[in-house]
Amino acid sequence: KINGDRLWDSLMELATIGGTEKGGVCRIALTDLDRQGRDLFVRWCKEAGCEIRVDKVGNIFARRPGRDNTKPPIMTGSHLDTQPTGGKFDGCYGVMAGLEVIRALNDHGYETEAPLEVSVWTNEEGCRFAPAMTASGVFGGVFTLDYALSRTDPDGVTFGEALKQIGYDGPEAVGGRPVGAFFEAHIEQGPILEREDRTIGVVTAAQGQRWYEIQWTGMESHAGTTPMEGRRDALLGAALLIAEARKIGARPNGRSTVGVIESKPQSRNTIPGRVFMTLDFRHPDDAELTRMDAEMRAAAARIASEHGLEVKIEQIWYFPPTPFDAKCVAAVRAAAEKAGLPHMDIVSGAGHDACYVAKVAPTGMIFVPCKDGISHNEIEDARKDDIAAGCQILLQAMVERANA
Amino acid sequence: KINGDRLWDSLMELATIGGTEKGGVCRIALTDLDRQGRDLFVRWCKEAGCEIRVDKVGNIFARRPGRDNTKPPIMTGSHLDTQPTGGKFDGCYGVMAGLEVIRALNDHGYETEAPLEVSVWTNEEGCRFAPAMTASGVFGGVFTLDYALSRTDPDGVTFGEALKQIGYDGPEAVGGRPVGAFFEAHIEQGPILEREDRTIGVVTAAQGQRWYEIQWTGMESHAGTTPMEGRRDALLGAALLIAEARKIGARPNGRSTVGVIESKPQSRNTIPGRVFMTLDFRHPDDAELTRMDAEMRAAAARIASEHGLEVKIEQIWYFPPTPFDAKCVAAVRAAAEKAGLPHMDIVSGAGHDACYVAKVAPTGMIFVPCKDGISHNEIEDARKDDIAAGCQILLQAMVERANA
Ligand SMILES: NC(=O)NCCC(=O)O
Ligand SMILES: NC(=O)NCCC(=O)O
Repeated sequence: KINGDRLWDSLMELATIGGTEKGGVCRIALTDLDRQGRDLFVRWCKEAGCEIRVDKVGNIFARRPGRDNTKPPIMTGSHLDTQPTGGKFDGCYGVMAGLEVIRALNDHGYETEAPLEVSVWTNEEGCRFAPAMTASGVFGGVFTLDYALSRTDPDGVTFGEALKQIGYDGPEAVGGRPVGAFFEAHIEQGPILEREDRTIGVVTAAQGQRWYEIQWTGMESHAGTTPMEGRRDALLGAALLIAEARKIGARPNGRSTVGVIESKPQSRNTIPGRVFMTLDFRHPDDAELTRMDAEMRAAAARIASEHGLEVKIEQIWYFPPTPFDAKCVAAVRAAAEKAGLPHMDIVSGAGHDACYVAKVAPTGMIFVPCKDGISHNEIEDARKDDIAAGCQILLQAMVERANA
Repeated sequence: KINGDRLWDSLMELATIGGTEKGGVCRIALTDLDRQGRDLFVRWCKEAGCEIRVDKVGNIFARRPGRDNTKPPIMTGSHLDTQPTGGKFDGCYGVMAGLEVIRALNDHGYETEAPLEVSVWTNEEGCRFAPAMTASGVFGGVFTLDYALSRTDPDGVTFGEALKQIGYDGPEAVGGRPVGAFFEAHIEQGPILEREDRTIGVVTAAQGQRWYEIQWTGMESHAGTTPMEGRRDALLGAALLIAEARKIGARPNGRSTVGVIESKPQSRNTIPGRVFMTLDFRHPDDAELTRMDAEMRAAAARIASEHGLEVKIEQIWYFPPTPFDAKCVAAVRAAAEKAGLPHMDIVSGAGHDACYVAKVAPTGMIFVPCKDGISHNEIEDARKDDIAAGCQILLQAMVERANA
C-alpha cells in the first residue's frame, strides 16, 4: 500500500518551486525553476536507491532494479513543467505518484520481477516551445531529435540552448530501447469524473488535436482619418476568426481555443497591420477534426477577402486521436475494481506524454478527479484521497505487469 | 517666398533620425532618438538666429524677434515624435515649415511687427504616453502639469522621468502667456484633398474623439478539457467587441479603431483569462460620438453577460469636436486664394496640437495632401510642391497676422 500523506507532502514541497501568490505554480519548461524541480526529483530518487539517466532531450529516467534486469522496464511518469498559470498537480502528480510507488515498494522490501522506471518528460505543456509533448514525442519516434532541439520560444531561444543552459542535456540516446509497459497517472483536468462521482478514470484514448499559427497582414493607417470602408485592419480579421473558430468548436465534443495573440504596431491610434494568433482545435473523431480544419480555412479566406487582408495559416501540429493499449486499459480497470473504487472509462481531452510513449510501448493512463474540472489555472486543486487512490491503482497495475 | 528645396532637404535630413528600412521614421516620444531630433531642430533654429526656450513639459519655443517685442508672438509649430510605424511628414512638416518661414524671412531681411515663434510640442502622437497632444494640452490649460508628468508608458516609465532622461525638462512655465495667433501646417493624413485635387485644405475644425481602455476578465482554463459552454474566454469577449465596435464606427463619418490588445497568459493551450484593449472612437458630431459610446457600452455588457466575463471600461480621454478661429481660418483661405492655389474647407480627422493651443489663442491649420491618404505608416509620402505650397501659405498667414 502506498503512503498517501508522503505523496501529498512531496507534491506540496515540489509546488513551492515556482509557487505563485494565488497558490499555483509557474515553472516553465527549461527555465532555472524547471532545473530546481528536476534537481529535487533526482535527489529524492537517489535517496530511494534509484539510478538516474538523462537523455539528449532532457528526459530523466530513475530506475529501480528488478529480479531480472534483462527484462524491459515497466515505466511510469509524466512532466514537471507547468503552464504560466499552472497548478500543483498537472504533470507533477504523475511523477510524484511514480516516486511514491518506488518508495512504497522499498518500505515493504518488495522486489518486482522486471525493473521499474519513473520518467520525467521535457516540455510537455507546449506553452514555451510548441508543440506540446516534444520530448516524449522524440522518445515515441514521432519527432526527430533535431526537430525537438530546434524548437524556439517567443524570444527566439531554442529548446537545445535552453536545455544546455539548465544542464539537463544528457548523454543517453532518446528511446530506441524496449519498454515493457507505460502507465501515467494524471488529474483529469476536466469536469467528468467529478460530475459522475467516480474516483478513477480508466483512460481509453486521447482526442485528436490540430495546432495552428495564423498570420494576418493588413495595412497600418491612421485611426482618425482612414475611412472605415477602405481599412485593412489585421486585428479585425483576427477578431472575426476568433468568433468563427468559437462557432466551429461548438459542435458536440469539439474544442476550439485561441490562446496567443500578438498585434503590431500596438499603437492606440494606428490601425493594426500585422497580427499573429494561435489556434488549438480538438475532437475525439478524426473526421470531425478534418471538417473543423476545412471550415476554419474557409472562414479565414472569406474574412481575408472581405477586409482586404492576407492570411497565412500554418498547421504546426497534428496529433491524431490515440487509443491506448487494450491490455493496459484492462489492467487499470481491473485494479480499480479490485480496490473497490468507483471508476469509469473516459477519453482524455488533453494530450499526454503517454500518448507518444504509446507509439513504442503498451500504454495506459489513470485519471483522478480535480476540483471543478479546472486545470491550467493557479486554483487547480484535487482531493488527497483521490490522489492517493490513483497512486494505489498505479502501483497495482505496475507490479502486476512487472511480475507477469 | 519660401525655399521649397531647403524645406524638403531639412525634412529628409530630420527623417534620418529614427529612419526605418521601409523608408519611414520610428522616433517615439521622449526616447533618445526624440532627443536627437530636438537637438537638430534647436541647432538649426540657433543658426537662424532664434532664441530657444524649453518649458516644464518639454515644449520647445524658438523665437525670432519682431519690431515690437512687447506684442504677443505669432506662433507656428507641430511635433517631432512619430508613431512606431510613422512617416517623414506627420508633425515634422509643421515644425520644418515653421523653420523655413524664419529662414525665408531671414533671406530677405524681412522684419515682422510682432515676434514669431516656432514650437515643438511633446508627445503629440499618444502612442507611448496616452492621451495624445499631452503637452499642448497643458499649454492649452486642458491638462494639469502633474497629470502630464505622471502619464506612464507600457513599461511603467512616467512622462516626467522620460523627459528628464533626455534633458528636455525645461525651466519655463507651461503656457500662461499671450499668443497672438497660432497656425499649424500638417499633411492631411487622409484621402480627401488628393481625391478632390486640391493643394490646400483650409481646416475649419477637428472631429471629436473618445479613447477607452477596456479590461476583460474571464478564467484561465484548459483548452482541451474545458467544454465550450462553460468557458469564460476573455479573448473571445475582446474579439466580439472588436467586431461590434467596427459596426458602431461604420455610420456616416464615424471612426472606430482597436489599436492595442494584450492577452494573458499567452499560452496556446490555456483559455485567456485577462485581456486589455484600447478603443478609439471619433465623430465630427458630438451627439453621434455620445451615441457611439452608449452603443459600445451596451454591446460590451451584453457580451460580458453572455460569456460569463467581467468587463471594465474606462474612458481615458475625451476630446470634443473643436472648431478653429473664424479669422484664422479666413486668413488661411485668403492666402490660398491670393496664391492661386486650389483649396477647400476640410474637417480634420486627426487631433492636432493646434486643437489644444486653440483654447488659449486664435488658431488655424493648413493641410496639404499626402499620397493615397496614408499616414501612421512608413510609406507615408507627400509631393515636394505641395509641401512648399503649404509652407508659403503659412508664411503669408503669419506675416499678415504679425503685421496686423
Ligand atoms: N496535460 C496537458 O495539459 N497537456 C498539455 C497538452 C495539451 O494541451 O493537451
Ligand atoms: N496628427 C496625429 O496623427 N495626431 C495623433 C492624434 C490622433 O490620433 O488624432
